[in-house]
Amino acid sequence: MINQRQKTVVVIGAGFGGLWVAKELSNTNYHVILIDKNNYHTFLPLLYQVSAAEIEPEQIASPVRFIIRNTKNIRFIRGEVTAIHYANKTIECLGQHIPFDYLVVAAGSVNSYFNISGASQYSFPLKTLDDAMILRNHVLSCFERASFVDDKNQRKRLLTIVIVGGGPTGVEFAGALAELVHGPLHKDFPELDSEEISVCLIEAGDRILGMYPPILSEYAKSELIKKGVNVLTHANVGKIEATGVYLNDSTIIPTETVVWTAGVKGEIIKNDCNMKISTNGRIQVNDNLNIPGYDDVFIIGDLAQYSQEGKTLPMIAPVAIQQGKYVGRFLKLMGKNRKTKPFHYRDKGSMVTIGRNHAVTQVAGLHLKGYIAWIIWIFIHILYLIGFRNKLFVMINWVWDYIFFEKSVRLILPRCCDNPDNTTCKRRFPNNHFCN
Amino acid sequence: MINQRQKTVVVIGAGFGGLWVAKELSNTNYHVILIDKNNYHTFLPLLYQVSAAEIEPEQIASPVRFIIRNTKNIRFIRGEVTAIHYANKTIECLGQHIPFDYLVVAAGSVNSYFNISGASQYSFPLKTLDDAMILRNHVLSCFERASFVDDKNQRKRLLTIVIVGGGPTGVEFAGALAELVHGPLHKDFPELDSEEISVCLIEAGDRILGMYPPILSEYAKSELIKKGVNVLTHANVGKIEATGVYLNDSTIIPTETVVWTAGVKGEIIKNDCNMKISTNGRIQVNDNLNIPGYDDVFIIGDLAQYSQEGKTLPMIAPVAIQQGKYVGRFLKLMGKNRKTKPFHYRDKGSMVTIGRNHAVTQVAGLHLKGYIAWIIWIFIHILYLIGFRNKLFVMINWVWDYIFFEKSVRLILPRCCDNPDNTTCKRRFPNNHFCN
Repeated sequence: MINQRQKTVVVIGAGFGGLWVAKELSNTNYHVILIDKNNYHTFLPLLYQVSAAEIEPEQIASPVRFIIRNTKNIRFIRGEVTAIHYANKTIECLGQHIPFDYLVVAAGSVNSYFNISGASQYSFPLKTLDDAMILRNHVLSCFERASFVDDKNQRKRLLTIVIVGGGPTGVEFAGALAELVHGPLHKDFPELDSEEISVCLIEAGDRILGMYPPILSEYAKSELIKKGVNVLTHANVGKIEATGVYLNDSTIIPTETVVWTAGVKGEIIKNDCNMKISTNGRIQVNDNLNIPGYDDVFIIGDLAQYSQEGKTLPMIAPVAIQQGKYVGRFLKLMGKNRKTKPFHYRDKGSMVTIGRNHAVTQVAGLHLKGYIAWIIWIFIHILYLIGFRNKLFVMINWVWDYIFFEKSVRLILPRCCDNPDNTTCKRRFPNNHFCN
Repeated sequence: MINQRQKTVVVIGAGFGGLWVAKELSNTNYHVILIDKNNYHTFLPLLYQVSAAEIEPEQIASPVRFIIRNTKNIRFIRGEVTAIHYANKTIECLGQHIPFDYLVVAAGSVNSYFNISGASQYSFPLKTLDDAMILRNHVLSCFERASFVDDKNQRKRLLTIVIVGGGPTGVEFAGALAELVHGPLHKDFPELDSEEISVCLIEAGDRILGMYPPILSEYAKSELIKKGVNVLTHANVGKIEATGVYLNDSTIIPTETVVWTAGVKGEIIKNDCNMKISTNGRIQVNDNLNIPGYDDVFIIGDLAQYSQEGKTLPMIAPVAIQQGKYVGRFLKLMGKNRKTKPFHYRDKGSMVTIGRNHAVTQVAGLHLKGYIAWIIWIFIHILYLIGFRNKLFVMINWVWDYIFFEKSVRLILPRCCDNPDNTTCKRRFPNNHFCN
């Protein structure tokens, strides 16, 4: 069905970068193949709210096929790309070789653990919807287990949650989690002593939210403390074990729940390109977001190492979106043999929320904190969420939570993803699926 | 904390039976311990809609701790009861022995496969929220896989769904599934030929909905056929394999998705009581729903074999609810040394929906079909659903679906529960959890 004159653009990843390339190229003369491991796009800025049982996973996800339904030139494949063969211009996916004329790699990032012992094994990631559900199941399950435990030390360990990394994700999750455990969960578990419940945020630097001005960091810290979060700065994690976090200053925090938000790195797909990779796994790109020397391969989003005015662009959604749009337009202009300008990122501002009524934002050089920043935060996030029903359901949940101090349905589901003792779920599913 | 004069009632299962016992005994002088494997109560009558991607799992679930929050005498334990030791009046749960004065067993039922070869191994159950999510993930995943397959036979096999059992669950699921695959999924997968998609309902008897009058069975069958469901009666399943269903008349239906709704049986917990168990695993009870000879042990719901006017009561929610209420009241009256009447079931009617605009109901000897029956069905189900937010979200989803012919967010999530090739999810989670 591919038109002889049509060129094929393969886009790897349906996150903010890849999806915006596809949107830009919809109903053009290009044949676009969009590939992702999941059949949905995830609105990652609200992921932490899923793990804090504030909203439900489907409310921040949109099926890719639904998004591209009204385009005739885009095909979706759910699968993992295992290799890029530039020499014969194909990629490998689900055992097949798919040819491309242009390739856009928007595969995103994975957690980076800086070789800290036990970190990858014993900490919970918070990068995907699966991660968020597993973490939520685990936290709720720890509370259930604690309610049945007589030993005070074991109970305290089950009721301690440690978040490593004082960046935006860590701060937002700490705030939301503190509201969950000291609010609805405290009411749900009258048999537990609230003194034994604790949320701890660990930051290696001298302040949380290091990319914001010190005054906003201070504000965020004091709001977190008011919510009952124990904020530790200058705290370096030495190792993580199944039963606790060991800091370099010999402090031991007994816990079975360590959440890792301290660092990410680009995820490189096996390939035969000659490229420069930075220490955090990002690929050096030129002004047109190509790998230098490969005019038909574009790298965007978290994976792209791009410097502007001497600063490397951060791994955030707005950068990925703008790069996606740029590459889409670039290809359209190229199709018309017109000249293109270099990529330029426009910083429209950034924001972090700290639970109800509190947020910090920096927009156009202006620094805001408190209630107004929080209202802006809500408005922007609802605006960018894909799908009317998702916007509606998230709004209802937020209003509900705001009025009743009540969270979403707190289910441990599916149980197969939370199975501390490996006894409940040695079930066999059809086609030899095993669930734990 | 247990008052010396207080008697302890242990209730096993927080389904319709167990939850209604607990509700009846809330804020009485009894100390109630309610135990369930899950931390939520499931509204099972709408379970099939979760697997048909019509509503989301959390919308038919309510956290048990939230339901009992305003009661001071009920304690909840999330765990599996592994044994009943009547001799010393304890039950075993999570390795501990919990003493009881009265025991109510409301453990429900599991699938019964009538020794059909491969049925338990290769068919999908539809009894729990986990089941519903796994089935939904699997169906959506089959469509994704089919879109990438060149072999016509394999593609047809992936796009064929067989439902075994023409009872209410089978009929309701077949109707909802047909609307999903021929509606939104057909639009989502323009690359698939709709001729290759098929839903097949298999019934061993001479008509579907055997417990309804023949005229309603005929109506249901013709409505299902209009929706594109292939309804086979007098069809006996001989064996099920990973790639197909084999009927006794030598028909082979190639499929990777067989859903089992053909039969359930009581789930007996290991115990030292002397009791009579029927062929379908139900425990014979007397007029007070006791095991004869055990005045302090009650059996209710799917597990109880109780005959009234010569007929055995069916395994349905209304029976469980009325029995739960009865046992709660019985215990309250006993506490006051007052006499009790035997249990009597009041049949308030039953109903089955067949997709949009169509249902059959029998209420007070009256048989209804079509649009009015469908409106009654909707009204009753929303009324009984627990929690205002659940009612609201389900209503929004139904209205949305009705207007736009659109289903809920169709996510394959979590991926660990759908892993046909065992390659995507050999992930290791903290505390040595493995996900597939």
